[in-house]
Amino acid sequence: MEKIQEQILNRVIQKRPEESYKGMFGKVLVVGGCANMGGAAIMAGSAAVHSGAGLVTIASAKENLTAIHAALPEAMYINFLDKVQLTQAIKQANVIVVGPGLGTTFHAIEIFKVVLNNISANQDLIIDGSAITLLSMHAELMTILPNANLFFTPHEMEWQRLSKIAIPNQTPENNQQKQQELNATVILKKHHTEIYFKNGMCKKLMIGTPAMATGGMGDTLTGILAGFLAQFKNQSVENVIQAAVYTHSKIADDLAAEKYVVLPTDIINALQVFMHHYM
Amino acid sequence: MEKIQEQILNRVIQKRPEESYKGMFGKVLVVGGCANMGGAAIMAGSAAVHSGAGLVTIASAKENLTAIHAALPEAMYINFLDKVQLTQAIKQANVIVVGPGLGTTFHAIEIFKVVLNNISANQDLIIDGSAITLLSMHAELMTILPNANLFFTPHEMEWQRLSKIAIPNQTPENNQQKQQELNATVILKKHHTEIYFKNGMCKKLMIGTPAMATGGMGDTLTGILAGFLAQFKNQSVENVIQAAVYTHSKIADDLAAEKYVVLPTDIINALQVFMHHYM
Amino acid sequence: MEKIQEQILNRVIQKRPEESYKGMFGKVLVVGGCANMGGAAIMAGSAAVHSGAGLVTIASAKENLTAIHAALPEAMYINFLDKVQLTQAIKQANVIVVGPGLGTTFHAIEIFKVVLNNISANQDLIIDGSAITLLSMHAELMTILPNANLFFTPHEMEWQRLSKIAIPNQTPENNQQKQQELNATVILKKHHTEIYFKNGMCKKLMIGTPAMATGGMGDTLTGILAGFLAQFKNQSVENVIQAAVYTHSKIADDLAAEKYVVLPTDIINALQVFMHHYM
Amino acid sequence: MEKIQEQILNRVIQKRPEESYKGMFGKVLVVGGCANMGGAAIMAGSAAVHSGAGLVTIASAKENLTAIHAALPEAMYINFLDKVQLTQAIKQANVIVVGPGLGTTFHAIEIFKVVLNNISANQDLIIDGSAITLLSMHAELMTILPNANLFFTPHEMEWQRLSKIAIPNQTPENNQQKQQELNATVILKKHHTEIYFKNGMCKKLMIGTPAMATGGMGDTLTGILAGFLAQFKNQSVENVIQAAVYTHSKIADDLAAEKYVVLPTDIINALQVFMHHYM
Repeated sequence: MEKIQEQILNRVIQKRPEESYKGMFGKVLVVGGCANMGGAAIMAGSAAVHSGAGLVTIASAKENLTAIHAALPEAMYINFLDKVQLTQAIKQANVIVVGPGLGTTFHAIEIFKVVLNNISANQDLIIDGSAITLLSMHAELMTILPNANLFFTPHEMEWQRLSKIAIPNQTPENNQQKQQELNATVILKKHHTEIYFKNGMCKKLMIGTPAMATGGMGDTLTGILAGFLAQFKNQSVENVIQAAVYTHSKIADDLAAEKYVVLPTDIINALQVFMHHYM
Repeated sequence: MEKIQEQILNRVIQKRPEESYKGMFGKVLVVGGCANMGGAAIMAGSAAVHSGAGLVTIASAKENLTAIHAALPEAMYINFLDKVQLTQAIKQANVIVVGPGLGTTFHAIEIFKVVLNNISANQDLIIDGSAITLLSMHAELMTILPNANLFFTPHEMEWQRLSKIAIPNQTPENNQQKQQELNATVILKKHHTEIYFKNGMCKKLMIGTPAMATGGMGDTLTGILAGFLAQFKNQSVENVIQAAVYTHSKIADDLAAEKYVVLPTDIINALQVFMHHYM
Repeated sequence: MEKIQEQILNRVIQKRPEESYKGMFGKVLVVGGCANMGGAAIMAGSAAVHSGAGLVTIASAKENLTAIHAALPEAMYINFLDKVQLTQAIKQANVIVVGPGLGTTFHAIEIFKVVLNNISANQDLIIDGSAITLLSMHAELMTILPNANLFFTPHEMEWQRLSKIAIPNQTPENNQQKQQELNATVILKKHHTEIYFKNGMCKKLMIGTPAMATGGMGDTLTGILAGFLAQFKNQSVENVIQAAVYTHSKIADDLAAEKYVVLPTDIINALQVFMHHYM
Repeated sequence: MEKIQEQILNRVIQKRPEESYKGMFGKVLVVGGCANMGGAAIMAGSAAVHSGAGLVTIASAKENLTAIHAALPEAMYINFLDKVQLTQAIKQANVIVVGPGLGTTFHAIEIFKVVLNNISANQDLIIDGSAITLLSMHAELMTILPNANLFFTPHEMEWQRLSKIAIPNQTPENNQQKQQELNATVILKKHHTEIYFKNGMCKKLMIGTPAMATGGMGDTLTGILAGFLAQFKNQSVENVIQAAVYTHSKIADDLAAEKYVVLPTDIINALQVFMHHYM
C-alpha cells in the first residue's frame, strides 16, 4: 500500500484567491452530540472552523446549545430533533458529518434517517462514530444509504461491526472488497491509518503518535476532513482526504515533541498556523 | 474612489485623557442572537468590549444568557423579548447594533420594531445581518426607519436585497444614489469594502485577506464599528468609520502572516494591543 | 492627603508560611449577579480566587450557575434566593462582598437584608455597586447596617447618592465627615481614588490609567479587596486595603503599556504573577 | 518514613508503545459535582484528561452538563441520579473517583451506595472529599465498602473524622493501624503528604508549596491519581501513587517560582508538558 507523503499538504492547501468570500469555502453541518456527549460535536465543529470551513452549523441536543455557543461562537446551532430545521440545514450544506457523540438511541436512529433521506448526489457525507454503530446494528439503515459521496471513518472495532470482517482478518484485500461494496471512501483509523478510495487507490499513513490515544481524537479528525472537503473543492477527493488525515497526525506529532498526551483541543488550536506553513 | 489610508488610525485612535471614566467611552447595545445564532451576538459584543466601548449590553434570546456570561463576563445581558427592558436599554445606549444572528422570525420583526421605534436622533444605529434582510423583506419596516445616525453593513447579496441593485450593477454611482435615498452610511462589505457616507464622500478599503472569509467576520466588524463610534465622539463620523473598518482588516492581514484562516475570536483578542500601536 | 506608595505591596504581600492550608487564607463569599449581570459576580469571584483567597463561594441567581462553574471551576455556587444556604454561607465566610451585579429589585433588597442581618462583628463586609445604590434608596437598610468591619467602594456618583454630598462638594473634609458617620472604610473610586479609614487616616492613589475605564473594573477591584482581606489578616486593615487598591491599578498600568484598553479579565489573569514580585 | 524521590517519575511515566489506542490508557469515571460544587468534578475530570487517561466520563448533577461540555469537551457526561446509566458507567470504568463536590445530601448517599454496590475487585476506587465525610457520618456505608482497590485521599480533618484519630494523634503508627484496618491505600494530604500502602510501605512527600493552599487543589490531585492509575497499569500501585502525588506538587513548585498562588487550572494546563520531561 502506498504511503501518504507530506507533499500532499503543499498540493492541497492552496493559497486562497485574493477575492474570496466565505461561501467559497463551503458549509459544513455536524449532526451529533446527544446530551451525554455534546463535547464530541463541539470538537468536530471546532476542527471544521479552525481548518477553514466557510460556515459551520452544529445540529445537536437542545442541552448543548449553550456549550456550543460558549465554546465556539463561530458556529450556528440547531436542535437535531427539529426535523424541519435539520432537513433545511442538510439541504444547504456541502459537507455533512453525522455521528460524533450522536449515541445509539431511538432518537439517534430517527435523526440519522433524516440525514440519509435528505442528502443528494453532489454532497459529501461523513459517517462517523455512533452512526457507524447504528448502521451495523440496524440493517434497514444500510438500505437507505444515499447516492452521495460517502466517507466512513471507523476504527478497527467499528469496522469489524460494519464490515463483519474480524480485526485479525482486516487485510487490505478484505477491507477493499467490502469498501467497494459500500461504494464509499473508508478511512480505517488504526496505528497506521489506511484509506480505501472509491477509485481503487489505497493509502497508508506512516506518521502519528501514541500521544494521540485519547478520547475525542476521532471527532477532531472528522472535523478536519469536513473542513478540507468543504474548502478544497478543486482538488481530487483522494488528495483532499490524504491531506486531512496527514494534517491531523502531523500536528499531533509536532505537539508530542513537548507534550506527553496531545489533546483534541491542542490539535484544533494548532490548525491555523500549521496550515499556513503549507499554503 | 479614494482609498482609506493607515494614517486614519493615528488620527482616530487617540490617547485617552488622564481623567477618564467608563461613561466617556459610550454605551453599546447589541440586539441579536436568536437561540440558533447566539455566537453572532457574543462576537459583536466581544469586539465592542475589546475595542474599548465603555459599557456593553447584549439583548439576546434567553437561551444565550449563560453563554454570554461565560464567554464575556464584561457584558450585561437582557432578554430581547422583554420590551420594557429592551426599550430602557435602547434609550440608555449611545450606539445600538441590531441584527447579528437576530434571525428573521416573527419575533425578530417585533424586536426590530422596538429598536426602530425607540431610537432618537442623536443615537447611532448600526443595522446589520438579519436586520438588513428583514428590511428587504418587510416594506413596512422601511417606513419606520428612524431619524438617527444610521449605518448599514451589508455584504453584496444583502445590499442587492436592500437596494434592489443586482450585484453586477453595484457601481459606485448606483450604490451612492440608493445610499443617499436611505440617508445612511453604507458599509458595503466585499473584496474591497466600500463606504458611502451621508456627506457624499466615498472610500474604498484596499487591505484585507482571503483568510478572513469565514463565518462571524461581519459580526466582528460590526462590534468594532460600535466600539469606535461609542468612544471616538470628538472625531468626524467619516474618520471613525474608516478607522474601524481599517482596524478590522489590518489585524486580519497581520494575523494572516502566520494563520491560514483568521477567526473572529483571533481578531477580537488582538484588538487591544493593535489599537495601542496607533494611539 | 498622603499618597499610597508602592512599598505597601512588599509589606502586605507576604511569603506564605511553609506549612499552609487553604483555611489560613480565608473564605470569601460574593453575593451578587442577578440574571442580567452574572458577569459582575464572576469577575469579583475570579479576582478573589486569583489574588489568593483560600476558598471562594458565589451566591448568585440560579441562571448563573453554569457560567460560574464553566468560567471559574475553583468557586462554589449557591442560589442567592435560598435563605438557608445563604445564611449558612455568610456565617462561614471571613469576608463577604455584597453588590456586584446584584441589581435593585425587590429580591435584591431581600438578599441584602439577609446579608446585613447575619453578619457578626469579626467579619469583613464589602458593600459594592448595586448594594450601595440600595442603601441610598431605602433608608430602612441604613438602620440595620451591622456592627462589622464595613467597607464601601462607591464611585463618585454612588458616593453622592449614599452620602448626599454632590460631586463638586466631595472634598476630603466632607467625605471624611460622612465616612466617620458611617463608621466604615470608604474607598472612593475616581481618577485618583481616595481611601478614608476608620482610624482617621486618608490615602490617595496616584497611579492608574484611562485604559481601565471599562465595565467590570470595579467588580474586579472588589474581588481583589476581598482576596487581600481574607488572606493578609496579620496586617493592619489600612495596609491591606492600600495594597489591594494599588495592586489593581498597578497591574492596569503595566498592561496599558501595550494595550489600548485593559479589561477586567486581563487584570485577573495577571494577579498571580504580579503578586509574586512583591512577596 | 521514606521520602518520595523525583526518580519515581522517570520510572512510572513511560513512553507509550508506538501502537497505542485509547483503550490502553483506561477509562476513568468521576462521580461528583452536586449543583453547588460542579467545579470540583470539572477539575478532577480535567486533571484526568490532561494527565493522559484514555477516556473520561463525569457523572454529575444535571445542572452541570453544560459547564462540563463547555470546559472539557473531551469528557462525556452522565446524570449521577440516573442509576441505570451510572451503574453501567461504573462497570465499564477501570478507575472510579467518588466524592469531588458530591455533597452530603440524601441524594449523595444514594449515589455513593450505587458506586459501592457495583464495583468489583479488579477496579480502582478513589474515595475523596464529600465521600470521605459521608463514610464518617454514616456507619452503614462502611459495612458495604467493596472488595476493590480502595484509595482514600483525606486531608487531616477528614482523616480525623474517618479514622477517629484526632489530628495531634495522627502519628505514622496510628495512621497505619487504621489504614490497615481499612484495607486501603491512604493518601493523607497535609504539609508533607503521607501515603500508607496496603503492603505496609509508608512514604512521605517532601515537596510542595504554600502557593497550593487554595480551593480545588485536592480535586486536581484526585484527577491526576485517577489518570495515572488508569494508564500505568504495568507499574506497581505503590509507584504509580507516588508518581501522581509527586507530579501534582512538583508542578505546583515549578509554577510557584513565578506565581504567588497556583490555581488548580494552572496545574491541569501544565500536566502534558511536565509529564513529557520524564517519559
